[in-house]
Amino acid sequence: MTRETEAGEAGEGPIRHGGDLGEAGRLFPQAPEPWIDLSTGINPIPYPWPALEASAFTRLPAPADLAALEAAAAQAYGARRSHVVAAPGTQALIDLIPRLRPPGRVAVVGPTYAEHAASWARAGHAVSEAADLDAPADVVVVVNPNNPDGRVVPARDLAAAAARLAGRGGLLVVDEAFVDLEPVESLCGAPPAGCLVLRSFGKTYGLAGLRLGFAVAEDPLIGRLRRAIGPWAVSGPAIAIGRRALADTAWRREAVAARARDAARLDGLLGSAGGRIVGGTSLFRTADFSDGPALFGRLGRAGIFVRRFEAAPARLRFGLPPDEAAWIRLAAALEHHPIAAPSDAAPGL
Amino acid sequence: MTRETEAGEAGEGPIRHGGDLGEAGRLFPQAPEPWIDLSTGINPIPYPWPALEASAFTRLPAPADLAALEAAAAQAYGARRSHVVAAPGTQALIDLIPRLRPPGRVAVVGPTYAEHAASWARAGHAVSEAADLDAPADVVVVVNPNNPDGRVVPARDLAAAAARLAGRGGLLVVDEAFVDLEPVESLCGAPPAGCLVLRSFGKTYGLAGLRLGFAVAEDPLIGRLRRAIGPWAVSGPAIAIGRRALADTAWRREAVAARARDAARLDGLLGSAGGRIVGGTSLFRTADFSDGPALFGRLGRAGIFVRRFEAAPARLRFGLPPDEAAWIRLAAALEHHPIAAPSDAAPGL
Repeated sequence: MTRETEAGEAGEGPIRHGGDLGEAGRLFPQAPEPWIDLSTGINPIPYPWPALEASAFTRLPAPADLAALEAAAAQAYGARRSHVVAAPGTQALIDLIPRLRPPGRVAVVGPTYAEHAASWARAGHAVSEAADLDAPADVVVVVNPNNPDGRVVPARDLAAAAARLAGRGGLLVVDEAFVDLEPVESLCGAPPAGCLVLRSFGKTYGLAGLRLGFAVAEDPLIGRLRRAIGPWAVSGPAIAIGRRALADTAWRREAVAARARDAARLDGLLGSAGGRIVGGTSLFRTADFSDGPALFGRLGRAGIFVRRFEAAPARLRFGLPPDEAAWIRLAAALEHHPIAAPSDAAPGL
Repeated sequence: MTRETEAGEAGEGPIRHGGDLGEAGRLFPQAPEPWIDLSTGINPIPYPWPALEASAFTRLPAPADLAALEAAAAQAYGARRSHVVAAPGTQALIDLIPRLRPPGRVAVVGPTYAEHAASWARAGHAVSEAADLDAPADVVVVVNPNNPDGRVVPARDLAAAAARLAGRGGLLVVDEAFVDLEPVESLCGAPPAGCLVLRSFGKTYGLAGLRLGFAVAEDPLIGRLRRAIGPWAVSGPAIAIGRRALADTAWRREAVAARARDAARLDGLLGSAGGRIVGGTSLFRTADFSDGPALFGRLGRAGIFVRRFEAAPARLRFGLPPDEAAWIRLAAALEHHPIAAPSDAAPGL
């Protein structure tokens, strides 16, 4: 699964990610618990996962079960069955794909999720951040819609870029981690030659602990990836729950509507607190504040952990509150915002 | 997790593995169900896994939880904490490690689990099967104790081989997938420089669906692997259950004794049926029969699926029956063995 990361840290030491309440506790040891974790873009209303049969734990995942999972994903994504490969989280794909190509020039359209650039760099590629798809490179990586700003690249532009890259043996990676709940066109239905699409399961279904994601591409690209991933990459629990959830179109339809309402409500709160909405998706909203670090600190001391960005101190990203009590705590913490003082600054990065 | 595979198939089409009852059903459509699956080396008495908290499914695995899992593994394996890295199954490590080295000459001590050779070949290395550790190569891979014959290489020989290889920038991979329940010395306590040890969780604990395995090595090797595996490779359920199981020394002590008794009982049955015991571990026994293919067919038609080997038709490998009813069915099917006729031959490979 693609996850939340400081932009601009690629290849330079550890990358900071959202979702680590251990970090929250270290930064704000006096905060009231339980924490409200708004530092990720994970759906706070998880799919109601079924009880698991013992065999999901005890037996090796069977090829037929993995095939059924990939068929369910293909159906959900409007893709052809043969174009879909399951993996233990999109992050596993992000780590793997750079090792399947000889070192070359890689352009990551950014700022965006930092693990893309970091992973290509780890595998020996020359990585740069690009403003758009036209960067001169062997590989172009774009997150669409983008994290954290929600920028959307039209499908026709992606297809044109894929064609340009494919013409010289290149690759376009389109990370559609946040596309499920958005009115955004996916490339999964007909991935262009030379284009690899990534889809995340855990974010949409609120089941990030399961570790499940998918790659969608034409052959020979997808065949190569299937062989590289190897047998039994995906766990029995992920197969069992993923199959069920991906086939549940009613749940997903409801999630699209409910999370869009949540996102609009969050924009309202952030706007009232002086935030300028930069963008986002139905699972997170990003806003700039005149005193971002102070607000980060105030929220933290109130037990609300949000995502900050080292390269853009004014910017904060907010996941969706999980329940009404959390909405109320968030609103209360934001209302105090105008009286923020310098002493409210967050502990040092 | 390392798993059961036809030896000698590396790099030539799909590798056949144990544990696929779909294949059993296709080979023997008339067999009585439920199948008794003796085609793997997975403990048929699983660790009694605890009920999982919702957060194991919903939240991103936290760094602190992963660290606790690795600490539990280090304790169980007698290793230093900093030498242990968790992965979603040993197979994931087998797929990854060949991509971390430039292409070179790889010798796999065989016959053995075929995924090792296949994975190095997929990553562009020149792979050969070797009779012992002295093969001229940049990388030597040995499964210890070996699958399927149980051959054990003494620790001092492994240390000497690692020193030779390390002296010229090489690597020794020791797959200790089956060491947990054996009276065999592990290298985990003090992995030599240039030596990478693999440990399997799912086999010993009977939880192959969880996907959990470990690598043990000194720095800088283990640090490089840790970075390549990336964050969140291991699922929340695997972390929660693995932590508990690896800390349960009483359960493991009992499993050592009980599975050794089972293995001795199985040797008795196989010997009575005319089998010549080749070897094995406490989780599987391998024997040669004067009419291996006929016995494979007879067992299959009785709903008992065992492991055969294309390159050694006389040889069959038996996992442990899970309960007394399965022992009785196996004994009955083996007793009919002497009257096997040519028409009993298994369906074609």
